[in-house]
Formats: sequence, structure tokens, C-alpha cells
Amino acid sequence: MEILSQNRSHGGVQGVYSHASQETGTEMTFSVFVPPHETGAKLPVLWYLSGLTCTHANVTEKGEYRAACAGHGIVFVAPDTSPRGDDVPDAEGEYDFGKGAGFYVDATEEPWAKTYRMRSYIERELPDLIAAEFPVDMQRQAITGHSMGGHGALTIGLRNPNRFRSISAFSPIVAPSRVAWGEKALGRYLGDNRDSWREYDAVALIEDGARHDHILVDQGTADDFLEDQLKTGALAMACAKAGMEPVIRMQEGYDHSYYFISTFLGEHVAWHGERLRG
Amino acid sequence: MEILSQNRSHGGVQGVYSHASQETGTEMTFSVFVPPHETGAKLPVLWYLSGLTCTHANVTEKGEYRAACAGHGIVFVAPDTSPRGDDVPDAEGEYDFGKGAGFYVDATEEPWAKTYRMRSYIERELPDLIAAEFPVDMQRQAITGHSMGGHGALTIGLRNPNRFRSISAFSPIVAPSRVAWGEKALGRYLGDNRDSWREYDAVALIEDGARHDHILVDQGTADDFLEDQLKTGALAMACAKAGMEPVIRMQEGYDHSYYFISTFLGEHVAWHGERLRG
Repeated sequence: MEILSQNRSHGGVQGVYSHASQETGTEMTFSVFVPPHETGAKLPVLWYLSGLTCTHANVTEKGEYRAACAGHGIVFVAPDTSPRGDDVPDAEGEYDFGKGAGFYVDATEEPWAKTYRMRSYIERELPDLIAAEFPVDMQRQAITGHSMGGHGALTIGLRNPNRFRSISAFSPIVAPSRVAWGEKALGRYLGDNRDSWREYDAVALIEDGARHDHILVDQGTADDFLEDQLKTGALAMACAKAGMEPVIRMQEGYDHSYYFISTFLGEHVAWHGERLRG
Repeated sequence: MEILSQNRSHGGVQGVYSHASQETGTEMTFSVFVPPHETGAKLPVLWYLSGLTCTHANVTEKGEYRAACAGHGIVFVAPDTSPRGDDVPDAEGEYDFGKGAGFYVDATEEPWAKTYRMRSYIERELPDLIAAEFPVDMQRQAITGHSMGGHGALTIGLRNPNRFRSISAFSPIVAPSRVAWGEKALGRYLGDNRDSWREYDAVALIEDGARHDHILVDQGTADDFLEDQLKTGALAMACAKAGMEPVIRMQEGYDHSYYFISTFLGEHVAWHGERLRG
């Protein structure tokens, strides 16, 4: 692991790091905030998965999470959204597919299958690195994310309920199988057999039996993508049918931007913090 | 005035605006955060002046001030750091002079004198626009800034003690006449007569009789520019000789970046807020 930068912030250290990923076959960059803590302490971890076009940098610069993480003693990890580099296949001119748009799947179709392995990267490889390199207690993890990353947080969380004590999301794509962004990405990464999409669709996972008791979603009412791509209502419906009681908050007047995320990310950190204690 | 963007954030509205400036003869962009408030209320204003290479955008995206401004009911205004546009003379390849480096002076030398009028822009023109367009009480103003903008906040504040109830700064250039950044900028904008530089030098202003009772400075000890360009100690010395008692805090391990500013900007907002009440 290579240190790209480390800056003192809110009493802790905001770092940016890179490493050679076995899963993607590329150099991967991620950021980690380690709050102030006593020597030898092992802290809980909150994962943040970013949205379309983003890298680790967007939330690291604009997320306003460090004060809350310092207050609650939580390590904050922000991975990239896809493999990177000249050797990685891309869809030129398409912001919603290819680089910056890995959709947290393990691709099975060519030419994506070799490098677009963001599911295994987030579920297995990066956690092992974080556990080895940072002062963390991997028995206490939670996950959140925005938009495509909200989809990632919900699906990874629902598939791994014992690993993540709590799941939250901002403006998540809750049912990618049913919306344009998702149909394009899942179709090209996974192929035409829609059965293979279901483990990458939060609503389908719940329909198929996945459960979690601690889910929090914030969705802005002025979000231009709400109706066509995000469909928060479909998550509420699926949870109701399954007897789950997520907290879904429609936030009046907020849009899809980091001005929205940064308003509520501190609250999400605190909410996860309650569930990560002890 | 043209609205470039408005986003709900922390219960208020973060806007970015532009207008045709008479002082600079150019289109100027600035940002304003208006916190939640009762209809008809007039709120105090905190000005934030940015550092070298910055626009309004750096602090707007990375500053983490909105939660505190919402809590204290303060309007936050962030201007640009120089005139902009193809017609504005620039020093190509120099990050510390020309565009992005107006140093908050009214230039007297050619070719800068016509457009580089950031002093008059910040001291007179933009306040008139803010007073006309936003719900503000111009009897209650305070000013802060970073690096070159800390120099701007200190000098504009010291020259206008009745307008600004309080002045704060992050990593300010306290004595530009004595450091490379300042000697280059003041020499080229104002000419060789160093007497004309003194009103743009916080330490010189204090030596010449300027006073203010409410000054707060935060300076990181790991700031690479501290020794050669910032010279916080010279401000402490000048204030001591003048019988002023500023709060100057050396912050252990912090550098010159927004990771430092965002750690303490909320505290500055609160500190100004105490002085802007009533």
C-alpha cells in the first residue's frame, strides 16, 4: 500500500492510498479517515460507496463527515467506483457505464469480466487490506453510499447482513433492473439473463428473502433522478411486503448533489455509530 | 445579478451568482449561503476571502461552514480572488500573480490598474450588491479568509474597524511587504514605492496605528509556508507592541490545506457569531 497523501483534519488523519488490486488487476486508490483515538484502540468502520462519475475524492473533499467520525470514533473508508488505467476497457463518452460506473458488480461479460470486479474488491479484497493496515475492529462495520453507491451499499449490505450492523443510503438506485441506468449497466456487465441481475438489485434481493433490521435512506424531493432512476417507493413497498421497517426520509427541497449529502452525512455517521457501539 | 446555481443545504440555500462588475470591468462570480431564517429577518454577514489560485468554489465545496452558519444564522459570502476573462492581463505560468492572485489591492501599475481593483470590489461594490439582493443586516459584518485571503481579511478589517465587528484568518500572510509572495505582488501591482504598500500589509497597518479588539488567527504548525511566507510571529509582535490582544492559535500538526480550514471554520463562525449578535 502506498500513501498518496495524509493531512491532519478534525483531530485525525485524512489519508489517500493506493495499492495493486488482485481482483481488478489495476492500481486502485481509496481514502481513509482515521479519527483521533488512543494508542492500540480498534475502531469501527463505515464504508462509503460513491456514485456515477465519482472517485474517492468527491466525498473526501465535499462529504463533511470528519467532524462526526471524530465525535463517534469511526474510521471512514471511501473506495473508487471502478478499475482505472489505460488498459481498462471503457465506454467513451458514456458517463453511466465503464470507468466511474462499476455498479459494484463482478462482470461476467467481455471485455469487462477481467477488470470490472468491484463486488469482490469491496466485499473481500479491500476489507482485508483495511484490516491489515488500519486500527479497525472488523467485527463492527457499517455501510453507506450515494446513488449508484447507495445501490452498492444496499446490495452489499443485504447480501452480508452479519458483516454490516447497519446500512444507509443517499438517493439510492433501489431497483436497477427496472431503470435505464441499471438495465444498461447490468445488461452489459452481466448479460441478458435477468436472473443473474437479482443479487445486484436491492428490491429483488428483498423479494428473494434478504433481510436487514437497520436500514436508513435519505432521498431529496427535488432530485431530478428520483422518478426515473431511483424509485425510492419501490424499496418502501418491498420492505413493507417483507415485514421490514426501514427509516426512509423524504427530504424536502434537496437535490442529488453533495450539498444534500453533506447536510445529512453527519447524521448517518451518528446513526451508524449507535449501532456500532460495543 | 445572475443565478448560476442554487442548492438546498443544511436547511438553507447555497447559491453561486455572477454580475457585471464596474470596478473590474469584468463578470465576477461569488457564492452566498443563506441559512434558514424567518421571512423578513435580516441576518449578519461573514465574508470569506480565498487564497492563491482559488475561486469562490474551493471554500464553497470544501469549507464545511454551512452547519455552523445555519446554527448561528449567519450569511456567508465568498468572492473570487481576481478579475477573470480573456481580456484580463495575466502572468502566464505564475500561480502567485495575476488571475487567482489579486491580493485584495487596487493596482496602480499598468497593465493591471484597470481590472485588478479587488480592494474596491470587496470594500464597496460587492457589499452594495449583497445588501440589495440578500436578507442581510449590513450593520453586523465580520470577515475571515485563508492565506492571501487571510491577508485580505486582516487588512480590510483593520482599515474598516467600524464595518467589521470581528476579524479572523487561517494561515494569513501577515506581512506581505517582507515575504516573497507579497514583494512580488505588491511590487508589480503598486510599484516600487514601498510606502504605498503599507495599507496592504497587516503588520504595517498596526505599526501605523490601525487597531481592532476582536482578532482570531489559526495557524497550522505543519504548514510548509509558515516560516517563509506567513510569519505569524510578526503579527503577534506587532499586536503586542500596539497593546492589542488577538487570539493566535498554533494548531499542532495541521498544514495549509482545506483539511485544516474545514476543521476550524465552524469554530470561527461561532466566534464571529458571538460578536455579531444583537
